Amino acid sequence: MRIVGTLEIVFSKALPMEAKDDIEKVIEYLNNDYLKKGTKDPNEAANIESFEIGEDRLIIKLNTGSKVRIDEASLRIRNVLSSILGRNYKIGVRNLKLTEPKILLDGIISVSISLPFIKKVYSEERRTIVELNDLFESDLKKPIFLRLLRLIEEKEKRYRWGGKAEHWILLKNSSTKPVLFYEDPNKILEEIGWIKRTSIGQWIYTPPLTHLLNSLKELFLDEVIKPLGFEEAIFPKMYPLEVGLKTGHLKGVINSMVFASLPKSYNISEFEPLIDYMTVMDEAPPKELQKYVEPPSYFLCFAQCEPFYWFFENEILDDNLLPVKWYDMSGPSFRWEAGGIHGIERIIEFHRIEVVWLGKPEQVIDIRNRLLEKYEYFLDKVLDLEWRLAWVTPWFYEHSGIVEEKIEIDIDRPGTVDIEVWLPYKGSREENKNWLEVGNISIHGTKFTQSFRIKHNKDETLWTGCSGFGSERWLIALLAQKGFDPSSWPKKYLEYVKRKPFPKSISTITYPKTKEGREALHQIDTKMRV
Amino acid sequence: MRIVGTLEIVFSKALPMEAKDDIEKVIEYLNNDYLKKGTKDPNEAANIESFEIGEDRLIIKLNTGSKVRIDEASLRIRNVLSSILGRNYKIGVRNLKLTEPKILLDGIISVSISLPFIKKVYSEERRTIVELNDLFESDLKKPIFLRLLRLIEEKEKRYRWGGKAEHWILLKNSSTKPVLFYEDPNKILEEIGWIKRTSIGQWIYTPPLTHLLNSLKELFLDEVIKPLGFEEAIFPKMYPLEVGLKTGHLKGVINSMVFASLPKSYNISEFEPLIDYMTVMDEAPPKELQKYVEPPSYFLCFAQCEPFYWFFENEILDDNLLPVKWYDMSGPSFRWEAGGIHGIERIIEFHRIEVVWLGKPEQVIDIRNRLLEKYEYFLDKVLDLEWRLAWVTPWFYEHSGIVEEKIEIDIDRPGTVDIEVWLPYKGSREENKNWLEVGNISIHGTKFTQSFRIKHNKDETLWTGCSGFGSERWLIALLAQKGFDPSSWPKKYLEYVKRKPFPKSISTITYPKTKEGREALHQIDTKMRV
Repeated sequence: MRIVGTLEIVFSKALPMEAKDDIEKVIEYLNNDYLKKGTKDPNEAANIESFEIGEDRLIIKLNTGSKVRIDEASLRIRNVLSSILGRNYKIGVRNLKLTEPKILLDGIISVSISLPFIKKVYSEERRTIVELNDLFESDLKKPIFLRLLRLIEEKEKRYRWGGKAEHWILLKNSSTKPVLFYEDPNKILEEIGWIKRTSIGQWIYTPPLTHLLNSLKELFLDEVIKPLGFEEAIFPKMYPLEVGLKTGHLKGVINSMVFASLPKSYNISEFEPLIDYMTVMDEAPPKELQKYVEPPSYFLCFAQCEPFYWFFENEILDDNLLPVKWYDMSGPSFRWEAGGIHGIERIIEFHRIEVVWLGKPEQVIDIRNRLLEKYEYFLDKVLDLEWRLAWVTPWFYEHSGIVEEKIEIDIDRPGTVDIEVWLPYKGSREENKNWLEVGNISIHGTKFTQSFRIKHNKDETLWTGCSGFGSERWLIALLAQKGFDPSSWPKKYLEYVKRKPFPKSISTITYPKTKEGREALHQIDTKMRV
Repeated sequence: MRIVGTLEIVFSKALPMEAKDDIEKVIEYLNNDYLKKGTKDPNEAANIESFEIGEDRLIIKLNTGSKVRIDEASLRIRNVLSSILGRNYKIGVRNLKLTEPKILLDGIISVSISLPFIKKVYSEERRTIVELNDLFESDLKKPIFLRLLRLIEEKEKRYRWGGKAEHWILLKNSSTKPVLFYEDPNKILEEIGWIKRTSIGQWIYTPPLTHLLNSLKELFLDEVIKPLGFEEAIFPKMYPLEVGLKTGHLKGVINSMVFASLPKSYNISEFEPLIDYMTVMDEAPPKELQKYVEPPSYFLCFAQCEPFYWFFENEILDDNLLPVKWYDMSGPSFRWEAGGIHGIERIIEFHRIEVVWLGKPEQVIDIRNRLLEKYEYFLDKVLDLEWRLAWVTPWFYEHSGIVEEKIEIDIDRPGTVDIEVWLPYKGSREENKNWLEVGNISIHGTKFTQSFRIKHNKDETLWTGCSGFGSERWLIALLAQKGFDPSSWPKKYLEYVKRKPFPKSISTITYPKTKEGREALHQIDTKMRV
């Protein structure tokens, strides 16, 4: 990346001859020394290519890299000149203007021209040229310019990185286990009516499925979460947009988010035309409704851990408190999925036990390690599943729209471990597509403590971690490997299921829908009651 | 209400003299007999005021009431004429047109002029006149016309009824009990940091408060819900608008609902200008965002029972299944409140155990009665609260935008019982404003079985019922009367709280915020651990 432009400095009065000599010396010093400071690579620093001294002004052609950027270079030049000319001749800087600034990028990159300061974007010979409007001193001091350059830098990196968005490195896997079942549990659950689809990717779970889910969640809490000292909290499930800016989700996964809007008025009489229309036409037209609601100012629970960082926003913590270990299971998450929705395996509205922690780096890593151990025990010994763990692109890098250039396994650095279980109904265990991600464990480094400004009283570094247990997916994974005969279920899980009487299935004239479904329900329901 | 208009019937050919005589007789029969059928009040029936027989047509001036309405009258006239003229002269009806139809209403009523068929609305001398466009046969046959008249009728009733929207009749109350505490538990909970406000009417509950809430929910389930055989289900928490049309909420409480929208595209590159803007400006502008999302096609969980009726939509049930008794506690409800938001007593996002049932009327009434008994036991014996029960305007009448004209206590008819608890911190028990509604029990009659077309295989009538247990409000009510010293708490509740170790409070450099808060936390936290 190169940044070029012409810096025009207007002084408070005409320059005497001696001042012109001084300026030449200053420019030499700047070019050889001060404009090179801050990077070891002179290419990434700033360079004065030429200059011209006028009666009361100085015109400088600048060409800079990405470390000492043109804005920083302009301000350094201004400061040095103002200090020397002020001291020697009582001359000040009246005006600073960067004309025709241009950013020259390798590769073809799309940058939105609706951005402030951007005049024109075009490409020639595999380069993208971003022309900016003229910038004044106040513009150069704004972080907006810095963020704009960061955005472009990121896009440039992403361009060079290409489409290699998927990284997956096997960490560990279980032994292969005898296959008991080859059917799709999603299909069976719908056929026997334990679940009923209400809308795209949304379902009602009847009491039998609710009971199986609850039993699995309780078992997970008892075996994994509670022994490690995590305590339950209740997090809201709708967040102002600003929270999504801070977590990065609004930048990284905005296409999968569901947004919420408030009514424009609390006075119901203002809705009368719409209510009249709905009453007479018996339909609710979204476009009409939109006129009565505010633009979306919230998004629905996406990662479920958002409120944890939000809770500690701007707080100063001390050692007595740390580490904090909480979990939340108080409501659903929403993830819009355009394709690939399937049963309760891949859904729009789903349920998760979200485990979160906060502490010093060594505490956060230690908790992650202990959690990982427990997960392995839970997968292998408690549920007896065929599983594997993988090191994947740190999710928050993806989710925040930032892309890292390389991936390496360093378990003590921020990153994510995916937990996957084989689904025999999908096909051979050799193919990746036949494995289901049921959860993950991440440590985020300072990503969230920084953006939510969570501080330590002795300025020590604070990290966070989170882990999501996708309830529906764990149950599907279990049923996919073990089937619907409880005698094949892991002993401990069966014990939890048997703690309470098995709930009634819904069976009546038109439900389940098909004769096959009703027969299958009868068989499965009978086995549950043995 | 009067409806007037001119009906023009064009026949398939010119009328012979004899036919004109027949028509005169037919009109006499219609006016004295057929147009009066369907109501005992001749004023509410239809009347032919005058008529004129042309060469091939008949022009009739009609004036009708609200029982045999002008559309129905027009079709009756058409049918009789077509049958007689067809038989005697092979003459058919070629065309039917109602010109200049007008609805004359008592009182000043606002009707949206954007409604289809409406030409003009104006008022004169305390009457409202609704002029419709000319209507043809196909219009007269549409239910839209019927619904329009119903809408106007309802508005007319509401106008006459005035603002008397609140009905409240005491059913039963507890004895007065000794007052232990006069402080506002909401204030204390925030001060000691057990809850933290994140956004308008939304809070994060830390583990100590979560534990108190969970203990109360468990106690309620064990004492009230499970002994009556209710089983847990999991309901979605976001519903398509059509569901709100069927429950009536979209018409009755649209001003308190939160709406949800999906992204327009699943392709993240289409969001690039917005993402670039958010990255550079570090803000998420709702108006910009709105351009990238669809108009709202969902609403967030409002009454929490919606999915229950939705589940049984279009199903045919038999006696073996009935009654169905479920509850859901899988996530939050959202209710936009413009004013009066206070602590966790009145909030935007809240948690509820929603109890629902479905059966024949006697089953539904019986379940309601048993539930009411258990509630009373729970309030009085288990929690030892000062409480009262009130019969209120059937909520669904209010909620669906329909207003009933009188209220009477007939406990076996559809209606709602409110459960209220006194909040000593608000003031004297004599004043209504110092009582908090913590829940209610409703039976809906056929309201939902009708709109969701839930049928019985032998065509017997099916009713539904629901009851909401507002978790936060019950806890606030308990703390408001008993305070924060567990030794004053009801024995059974304390037993549930003591089942698990009391969770850690958050106490660190900047949290709780004030010195008083930190001291109060220390005192309360210590008592919890005794």
